[in-house]
Amino acid sequence: MALADRWLLPEGVKEILPPEASQIEAMRRRLLDLFDSWGYDLVLPPLMEHLDALLTGVGGELDLNTFKLTDQLSGHTLGIRADITPQVARIDAHRMRNEGASRLCYCGSVLHARSTQPLASRNPLQIGAELFGHAGLDSDVEVIALMIATLHKAGADQELSLDLGHVGIFRGLMVDAGMTSAQQNEYQGMLQRKALPEIERFLKTLDVDERVLELLAELPRLHGGIEVLAKAKVLFSDASEDVLDAIAYLEELAQRVAKRFPELDLYFDLSELRGYNYHTGVVFAAYTPAYGQALAKGGRYDDIGRDFGRARPATGFSADLKTLVDLASLQVAQVSLVTAPAGEDAALLEKINELRAQGVRVIQALSGDNQAVKSSAELVLENGEWTVKGL
Amino acid sequence: MALADRWLLPEGVKEILPPEASQIEAMRRRLLDLFDSWGYDLVLPPLMEHLDALLTGVGGELDLNTFKLTDQLSGHTLGIRADITPQVARIDAHRMRNEGASRLCYCGSVLHARSTQPLASRNPLQIGAELFGHAGLDSDVEVIALMIATLHKAGADQELSLDLGHVGIFRGLMVDAGMTSAQQNEYQGMLQRKALPEIERFLKTLDVDERVLELLAELPRLHGGIEVLAKAKVLFSDASEDVLDAIAYLEELAQRVAKRFPELDLYFDLSELRGYNYHTGVVFAAYTPAYGQALAKGGRYDDIGRDFGRARPATGFSADLKTLVDLASLQVAQVSLVTAPAGEDAALLEKINELRAQGVRVIQALSGDNQAVKSSAELVLENGEWTVKGL
Repeated sequence: MALADRWLLPEGVKEILPPEASQIEAMRRRLLDLFDSWGYDLVLPPLMEHLDALLTGVGGELDLNTFKLTDQLSGHTLGIRADITPQVARIDAHRMRNEGASRLCYCGSVLHARSTQPLASRNPLQIGAELFGHAGLDSDVEVIALMIATLHKAGADQELSLDLGHVGIFRGLMVDAGMTSAQQNEYQGMLQRKALPEIERFLKTLDVDERVLELLAELPRLHGGIEVLAKAKVLFSDASEDVLDAIAYLEELAQRVAKRFPELDLYFDLSELRGYNYHTGVVFAAYTPAYGQALAKGGRYDDIGRDFGRARPATGFSADLKTLVDLASLQVAQVSLVTAPAGEDAALLEKINELRAQGVRVIQALSGDNQAVKSSAELVLENGEWTVKGL
Repeated sequence: MALADRWLLPEGVKEILPPEASQIEAMRRRLLDLFDSWGYDLVLPPLMEHLDALLTGVGGELDLNTFKLTDQLSGHTLGIRADITPQVARIDAHRMRNEGASRLCYCGSVLHARSTQPLASRNPLQIGAELFGHAGLDSDVEVIALMIATLHKAGADQELSLDLGHVGIFRGLMVDAGMTSAQQNEYQGMLQRKALPEIERFLKTLDVDERVLELLAELPRLHGGIEVLAKAKVLFSDASEDVLDAIAYLEELAQRVAKRFPELDLYFDLSELRGYNYHTGVVFAAYTPAYGQALAKGGRYDDIGRDFGRARPATGFSADLKTLVDLASLQVAQVSLVTAPAGEDAALLEKINELRAQGVRVIQALSGDNQAVKSSAELVLENGEWTVKGL
């Protein structure tokens, strides 16, 4: 590495300078306060854990995306978290052990060993909320409603659309088709690329019932408005119960979400699996035309707690706080700045303390520093009293 | 690793659950607001950087304490930050390039590859403030005053004591003694352990002027009240100019700090170097009897920016936010909790939104979840209107 490059940040890694950093902080507070008002308790999982604990039940994509380290103290393999949701599930299952519903939220940095998308940040600031211990529609509706409320609060309220899918449809079809797990992975990759000609060629190589082949060929075409669900119900009428249950669940969920958010554009994609590493049920992602990736995404992931000693139903969502701030161009209230002269005069120091305690930003000059600070007012001695004078 | 241990966190790694997490968040906001009122702008340096950038000019202790990784994208060696201060110095020197004084602050997680102390956290939440571009007493006084204000704000205001030292005394003596760098390290290690008999034996092996040997033998004894400075002035009267300048600087600084904070216990230790990895001038640490380690520490580190393309004077301090919260046992105002029944009734949902917007915490029941939530009030339908009723 050339000397001049040494101070460049690694590819995909971003740092945040003033004034953006204070916008991030303001947004962080605003959203954590929102979560709190919905009854979500804050947790702070650690940046690093035993790799086994980080990766239990989360699938290969997250494994590839996780930085690994050897702990000098124990010799064990550690991982730097690439996702906070599985940590929160461990906390719910293993540490808190509540009966009934448990609402938890978090905000923290994660690191990605690889870029998940071209130009994607490798150090997002993940913020999210998770609801454990309830298996029905109510909890999915609550989490989707909180995700929408989060985006509204963040100022991204124009032309939001919500993508809905259900992992159970793909899984049910895989059972019906009896594919090997290598075949499943291959097919899933093609689905994610919506590579229709590839899928056609691939399906010809399978030794599967004609009727199931037809369904596998149709799955990548099942995206669009609410009519997709009606089409799927007809198409999958003789598929397994699990597939039909998943479609019915999506239909009911869509009705409830549409009733709460009539202005929201609903979109369905029954083959969407991208980035859903541990999900087992309904999955959802919010989009806006101004941004190519999902603003926030989440879903149901009931199985994840099993390995942590307690299988709990779970649903939740997360977002990258930096993305939300970029889109919202949040205006942070400008605090007025008062400059004060250098010196140890007790009355001056007292006046400065008093102003700061009132939330006024006061910069005291340093002897010999002649760079003028742009301020709106200064502290001056008038008739023996330190007084703020506008400039 | 046994299956049951898999969910244990690595040695020295801590996670924070409710309600402590919301105390941390409250303290974080309180202190960042304090820094802001003093004119310190927030920055968010990344968790990971090129190892070269992280370790430039910071010394071997921080190197040993930094987790290393290989970047799959570039093949370069990366490090997970073990300290945020050097990152902020890089930002000041390389990214912001202000003339005159620059005030920056931060709050974020760091990871330590080894434990710095027995039982010390390996994932502290470092919070701190740094002042660049001013070389005189004024900036050291400002940073010490902000450090004390931080501890007061954090609620740790009983019996605070401030330890003062100056790295220039040790460095000046090393020049006078002409020790090799291996000898310097050996002597420094003994100084930090205050291992007097060891030092005596070690000094006998050196081929150094009798008078300098005497000073090297006295250095570890120079700790105590302000009288230590008078003693040092006599003792070091024929040492190099740098040593005498350092003592004079400490004396003047102590006077100014004592004037501002007459209730503060001042303590001097002229051989203190522990944990000051990149410091070049005055160093300071705040203690309270309730806690064995420093609550907050910092000092002057003028050289660090040179490798980043611009040598800038620098002084600052940092603390572990978790330690501050542990000590302060901050009371977070209990928000009143209102429970609401399940359902999609539009008037009910509107009332819930309204309450939440007012900062009230409202938990809506989930159908089928029979675990009672402990609340102080509930939403009930009375005469056709949703009303909050105290329980």
